[in-house]
Amino acid sequence: MELFYSSDIDSSFLTLPKDESQHCIKVLRHRSGDEINVMDGCGSLMLCRILDASPSACRCAILSSEPGFGAHSYTLEMAVCPTKNISRYEWFVEKAVEMGVDRIVPLISSHSERRSVNPERLFKIALSAAKQSLKAGIPTIAECESITDYLNSSRPEGLDMIAYCDSSLDCSKRQSIRSLLASEAEESRPIRVLIGPEGDFSPQEVSLAFEKGWRPVELGASRLRTETAALCAVSAVYLRFMP
Amino acid sequence: MELFYSSDIDSSFLTLPKDESQHCIKVLRHRSGDEINVMDGCGSLMLCRILDASPSACRCAILSSEPGFGAHSYTLEMAVCPTKNISRYEWFVEKAVEMGVDRIVPLISSHSERRSVNPERLFKIALSAAKQSLKAGIPTIAECESITDYLNSSRPEGLDMIAYCDSSLDCSKRQSIRSLLASEAEESRPIRVLIGPEGDFSPQEVSLAFEKGWRPVELGASRLRTETAALCAVSAVYLRFMP
Repeated sequence: MELFYSSDIDSSFLTLPKDESQHCIKVLRHRSGDEINVMDGCGSLMLCRILDASPSACRCAILSSEPGFGAHSYTLEMAVCPTKNISRYEWFVEKAVEMGVDRIVPLISSHSERRSVNPERLFKIALSAAKQSLKAGIPTIAECESITDYLNSSRPEGLDMIAYCDSSLDCSKRQSIRSLLASEAEESRPIRVLIGPEGDFSPQEVSLAFEKGWRPVELGASRLRTETAALCAVSAVYLRFMP
Repeated sequence: MELFYSSDIDSSFLTLPKDESQHCIKVLRHRSGDEINVMDGCGSLMLCRILDASPSACRCAILSSEPGFGAHSYTLEMAVCPTKNISRYEWFVEKAVEMGVDRIVPLISSHSERRSVNPERLFKIALSAAKQSLKAGIPTIAECESITDYLNSSRPEGLDMIAYCDSSLDCSKRQSIRSLLASEAEESRPIRVLIGPEGDFSPQEVSLAFEKGWRPVELGASRLRTETAALCAVSAVYLRFMP
């Protein structure tokens, strides 16, 4: 199934953005009257009929709409420090979208070597992965935020977990993400996971997370790269809610 | 911890290969008398003293050896069809090694677009990932093999699973990989997972797998790319044996 994307929707009509219009009309040679599938990025898949086959602003009538197309049953926010090599972070975004994630927050730790990302580029990667995996929802890619600000902002009562490596910190309360998810995760309870940078969180950042009620978890015996740790956490949630 | 690799070992001495010698002596400027950590690729980590700091063939005495360094508790073989874009397959190899895998078999399906891989390059990626994740064992990278030959070859009594997408096949017996692992996986029982190419297995290949006792599994509701499906299966095993 070929999926197009538009956020330019008014009641029963929509317009594809320029690159999607070009792909639809110039590359795939759709004509006026053709039916195409368009996702709104918020979870709805719309069956549309092309009214004006413009290669710069293809105009369509919405025939029907299916909310929650390709949606997952849980709510997951991944707050992950960008990797020094940005392609590793982009890879994480792609794979997380394929499995299912609702929001990705690029966090800046005091140990972060990379302190910025290109949100438009990450959005494009997320959009492409959502199309590929037939999901009509694209996760929100948040602005970069410092860990301190992120932890200090208010939050609903969810299941908040922080994965860290530093063995000098108190690990006595730390359990595996698998066992914590098995005992406490529920579909109605939003899940957040915090993954640090290559140099791990600072002890102050871990302490602040504890103060704010984040639960320490470990991701098994292997020493995983940042992006692998992040995907391991997404997999753990994805598998937790698998039948 | 800096890890070097050598397979050129005789009783209590070893020689680093050329590229490792150069990195050790030229880049990291180690001298005779220095102690370094060397992995043998088969699971042992050896503490060594440099005897001859040659940048082309660094010679060392083995002071002690620790078997099973960074080993995982399960036995996992991943038989995965190479992706059209080889970098996606290389990415899978890297991530699978980080989590823990024992053997990777590049399988050729009748639907495969790519019918060969470069085993030396995959070995290098696996070696680098093993070093990075502090594992002294490197998985075997098998030669390319057709699915038919692979399925027809003998096997021990393990837990063999095939993940496929084709919904026209009988799916009534298919359960999720999570639930099958939960009920049947044991540390002493070797696990094998078969993952098809972009165009999925042919119905004949799936039927042959059933005949040979492979169990059909599904990897959740998301439509995953080949390499994501393969890593999802590795994660499922890794998480299954997490405390």
